[in-house]
Amino acid sequence: MREVAIVGVGMTNFGKHEETLLEMFGDAANEALLDAQLSPKEIEALFIGNCLGDFAEGQANISPFCASVIGLKDIPTIRVECACATATVAIREAVLTVANGVYDTVLAGGTEKTLVMGTPFATRTFAMASDSRFEGFAGITFPGAFALMAILYSREYGVPLEVLKEKMAMIAVKNHKNGAKNPKAHFRKVITIDDVKNSIMVADPLQLYDCCPFTDGAAAVVITTLEKAKRICKKPVVVAGTGLASAGAIIDQDIPRIKAREKAAKVAYAQAGMTPNDIDVCELHDCFTIAEIIATEGLGFFEHGQGWKAVDKGETDIGGKIPINPSGGLKARGHPIGATGAAQVYTIAKQLREEAGEFQVDGAKVGMIDTLGGDFSVVCNLILKRGW
Amino acid sequence: MREVAIVGVGMTNFGKHEETLLEMFGDAANEALLDAQLSPKEIEALFIGNCLGDFAEGQANISPFCASVIGLKDIPTIRVECACATATVAIREAVLTVANGVYDTVLAGGTEKTLVMGTPFATRTFAMASDSRFEGFAGITFPGAFALMAILYSREYGVPLEVLKEKMAMIAVKNHKNGAKNPKAHFRKVITIDDVKNSIMVADPLQLYDCCPFTDGAAAVVITTLEKAKRICKKPVVVAGTGLASAGAIIDQDIPRIKAREKAAKVAYAQAGMTPNDIDVCELHDCFTIAEIIATEGLGFFEHGQGWKAVDKGETDIGGKIPINPSGGLKARGHPIGATGAAQVYTIAKQLREEAGEFQVDGAKVGMIDTLGGDFSVVCNLILKRGW
Repeated sequence: MREVAIVGVGMTNFGKHEETLLEMFGDAANEALLDAQLSPKEIEALFIGNCLGDFAEGQANISPFCASVIGLKDIPTIRVECACATATVAIREAVLTVANGVYDTVLAGGTEKTLVMGTPFATRTFAMASDSRFEGFAGITFPGAFALMAILYSREYGVPLEVLKEKMAMIAVKNHKNGAKNPKAHFRKVITIDDVKNSIMVADPLQLYDCCPFTDGAAAVVITTLEKAKRICKKPVVVAGTGLASAGAIIDQDIPRIKAREKAAKVAYAQAGMTPNDIDVCELHDCFTIAEIIATEGLGFFEHGQGWKAVDKGETDIGGKIPINPSGGLKARGHPIGATGAAQVYTIAKQLREEAGEFQVDGAKVGMIDTLGGDFSVVCNLILKRGW
Repeated sequence: MREVAIVGVGMTNFGKHEETLLEMFGDAANEALLDAQLSPKEIEALFIGNCLGDFAEGQANISPFCASVIGLKDIPTIRVECACATATVAIREAVLTVANGVYDTVLAGGTEKTLVMGTPFATRTFAMASDSRFEGFAGITFPGAFALMAILYSREYGVPLEVLKEKMAMIAVKNHKNGAKNPKAHFRKVITIDDVKNSIMVADPLQLYDCCPFTDGAAAVVITTLEKAKRICKKPVVVAGTGLASAGAIIDQDIPRIKAREKAAKVAYAQAGMTPNDIDVCELHDCFTIAEIIATEGLGFFEHGQGWKAVDKGETDIGGKIPINPSGGLKARGHPIGATGAAQVYTIAKQLREEAGEFQVDGAKVGMIDTLGGDFSVVCNLILKRGW
């Protein structure tokens, strides 16, 4: 296997877009190519993530058009879909092809429009990522699934629900504080604990400010061999490890733990030859505030049942023991589902290159990406490190 | 790169199914595992093709559930979507991972339900595979696109439309004759030229019997290294070459030629070290009768502008110079879009193993798969050969 590096990253502002899925992808891809100082002609294949283009725009089979919108008329193109983990899985597939010599230089990313659907319809389409035979009509939409997760976490670890809710609210406050510093974030608004407490109930115990928003956006990355990367850029970001794992219907799982994450992270750590202690910064899947707590445990930053305490001590703040979601996370940066993983990679690459501006984690040399798809049924992890 | 082989194949009957997408996939996958005499535990990853599970069943993110339905609870799973080329692209991705040592043994395939949607809605959802910005609402649904193709073929090569229509009808008759011999085909009914001529007009010049049906079905294949394959089975089917290429919106293309196919096939032939003369049997993308003519030219079996003559001389019959679609093709075997490529691989594997029964091509040693996605925007080709 060859060592692989990210040499260019691009991302639209996240939020409401009038542009189409293809236009947004074109903007992100062109920014990534410009960042890499590469011509589109050097791109040999495209791996694109998109979940709901068919519902949002009547656009399936989006991959060839994503290529053509940046002037690439005949390269191999593939659309990948794994719910909210979509773009991370697409990037991992792209990394594997370069690592193994199938291609030398490829483009990967994601594009998604959800706001055009409106909240009730978007919620229903998102719920299609659960097992349709058993879950959605039994109330296991995503707010339902994560509300269940919060209640089971509270019971399993003996954390009173009111205490847990207070910590969850603090996570929302932290991630909004971070997002306010990120010029590309969907929400750039500082909020308070009271804002969370006074927000409407969505699925008990999750209130509105415990939930990430529906968002439009796209992000893209240029991936090549480390050897080529060293020739063409000063700060290649090396893909040190990747992991992907799955789980079936929620009833077969072991919540409040997410075993798919534990397996995926284990594989990624082993590949990188690292442990959780080596990670300087992490962008993880905080689709709901409880999800951040559980992810920090699954990734090994805290013991199971202990992650809820971290926000209290500032351990997950920028400047803390393990800064979590300095970009604002899904909660404040926003969550265009099929693009989220690519935005996480964008963010970590910027962090390692020390180009994250006001939300920079000082001296970050190793970063982790964590993306969860469906109700705990797919997890993809990437570990990135400085290649200079 | 390691040599890769197919050691097990499975396929549901094609036609109308009451079973769910997951149940159909489970049936096909279990048949493939039984054929390979492998336990599910030996499967390290799953690459699944599906196009319209969200519209058909409200099921997106299908890959983890396809794994769990055959008892696999935590392996890496990926859903691929490239319109009608979906399953072939999924299988190619799987092949690449085994060739490059990412995994040793994987499962790939496709599952699709379309009949539940009904013809008007299915036609609209299929049309989402064209460029949604320009095409569908301008009449470029799939019947529209291929009708345009037939007219341009007639003009470009000076073949009077009535002559071309006669040959197209003969292709429908041939493929139904083949399908009648295939116990898993959707249509097992011999038809006549008059049946085609008397069928309703769909999109001039395409009549109903020029068009493949909407179909439900699933197919799956077990892929491993040739080294392992030789240990566990007598007739490993080697993947000798693969190719994948794309094109943008139809207005940027060069119809009646399909350049994406010409590029994909060129790559596959080069990898296999073969020419069209080496191919003994081919399953190709006859979504409409005109599509078969154009595919036989694009794959190099006939000169451009000459393919329409072949059916006349019986050259594409079982027993002819290059037997095309002995299974009945999309036209008679049926076209569950995200499963079609896997059914083509199933068929070619059976042909090479001399297990195709009444539609066996005697002595077939090398076979080709051709799958076209969208209105000529994605083509994936595979070349398979005997490994014994």
